[in-house]
Amino acid sequence: MVLGGKMKRNIKLTIQYDGTNYYGFQRQAGRNIDTIQGKLELCLAKVFKEPIKVRGSGRTDGGVHAEGQVVSFFTTSVIPVEKIALALNHRLPRDIIALKAEEVDLNFHAQYHAFGKKYVYSFYQGVTPSPFYRLYSYFVPYQLDFEKMEAACTLLKGTHNFKAFSSSGSNVKTFERTIYDIDLIKNGNHWQVSISGNGFLYNMVRIIVGALIDIGRGRLDISCIEEALETTNRNLLGKKAPPHGLCLKEVYYSPINYEE
Amino acid sequence: MVLGGKMKRNIKLTIQYDGTNYYGFQRQAGRNIDTIQGKLELCLAKVFKEPIKVRGSGRTDGGVHAEGQVVSFFTTSVIPVEKIALALNHRLPRDIIALKAEEVDLNFHAQYHAFGKKYVYSFYQGVTPSPFYRLYSYFVPYQLDFEKMEAACTLLKGTHNFKAFSSSGSNVKTFERTIYDIDLIKNGNHWQVSISGNGFLYNMVRIIVGALIDIGRGRLDISCIEEALETTNRNLLGKKAPPHGLCLKEVYYSPINYEE
Repeated sequence: MVLGGKMKRNIKLTIQYDGTNYYGFQRQAGRNIDTIQGKLELCLAKVFKEPIKVRGSGRTDGGVHAEGQVVSFFTTSVIPVEKIALALNHRLPRDIIALKAEEVDLNFHAQYHAFGKKYVYSFYQGVTPSPFYRLYSYFVPYQLDFEKMEAACTLLKGTHNFKAFSSSGSNVKTFERTIYDIDLIKNGNHWQVSISGNGFLYNMVRIIVGALIDIGRGRLDISCIEEALETTNRNLLGKKAPPHGLCLKEVYYSPINYEE
Repeated sequence: MVLGGKMKRNIKLTIQYDGTNYYGFQRQAGRNIDTIQGKLELCLAKVFKEPIKVRGSGRTDGGVHAEGQVVSFFTTSVIPVEKIALALNHRLPRDIIALKAEEVDLNFHAQYHAFGKKYVYSFYQGVTPSPFYRLYSYFVPYQLDFEKMEAACTLLKGTHNFKAFSSSGSNVKTFERTIYDIDLIKNGNHWQVSISGNGFLYNMVRIIVGALIDIGRGRLDISCIEEALETTNRNLLGKKAPPHGLCLKEVYYSPINYEE
């Protein structure tokens, strides 16, 4: 495609970031460079010597991390694709990293072409919170029941109306989503919930994990999961887990083999 | 002991800290509360309702972390020893944590009674630095030779004059120190040097690790280790490794069984 007399290219960029020091992924008037998108666009403009607008696969909230966020953007620059990540990393702050850039079809869109995503939520049990995990894992000062939490995960798998597992504040047409896989992983006192699906409602993973932890410590009964799925009543579930335990691991751009 | 009409107690406190946001352990005029010691003393004064001066097992530089730093201090407060850590953690920022408090003999001194220390230095190899390790592990953009580095470790073990492995700026009487154990540990691309000894000169671990990495990438020959030990010439070794990879793991307060 020709853009202002120059060839237009579409670049798919995979990035990682530590979300601690940002107001989330999405650009915001007034605090633009304190968002991932704003900071990225600023550095891209310097590398490509033209204004760049990126489209992300989706937003992440302030404090949420990403190991495999994907954005796409158009450019007329002729910079070789294999040099983009390196050039960008020279400009980016150390808490945002470009992993790889690929030239893709002009109609590729990081959000609309995503088939699904994988998130991992990390938390740990103990007496004293660790200064070393405070930014990346949620401290839970209770003993948790692994079996109960694992059983609750099983109930969430599949296609459901997840309205009870969402915060208001986004405009979505339907609350039906499919969870392909949800696993509780144990590594000593450090546990993770790994969850992949075709799409996630606003705060969905954090509400799921908050409910799982409440079930694990005995504050909620496992029956609340089925009841919440049936009644779509958000009040049946506890508080959402805090953002810093959450990490966007991967965005899928090819169909997922899934059997219910 | 009676102090101003009150019983004096000596408390041994084990703490952890993420050193990222501090100018190091030692209190400094003008930036007192931006040091670990200053911040700790401020919070101790609030908990004990009296001024408290702590003595650390030793300093750590700005950016260096600790999983097992030990301090001791006197107090006339009658607060039960088992409540000290919890009370303190309510006051401390989240990057400093009190692990445990013990009441010890009045002549115990965190520095003078230490028999030795254990440090771990973390680094990782790769193409792109990770935003998640940037505060806790040193990024090395080279492939390193494990066998060569391990062989170099063996040469460092034992009692030597480590003057070549120290920065100027501290007043020590002798440069002789004993390294009890030094191990290179491999976990995928994440490697660690674990090193225990009866005492460490200023920057000694960081200079050792800097030299090991230079040997691993082929910039220094392994012979420089023996030469540096013999000649005490600091210039034979490369740059010291940066502070953020370093962590004080443990301070030993009982004799170490060591055979050369």
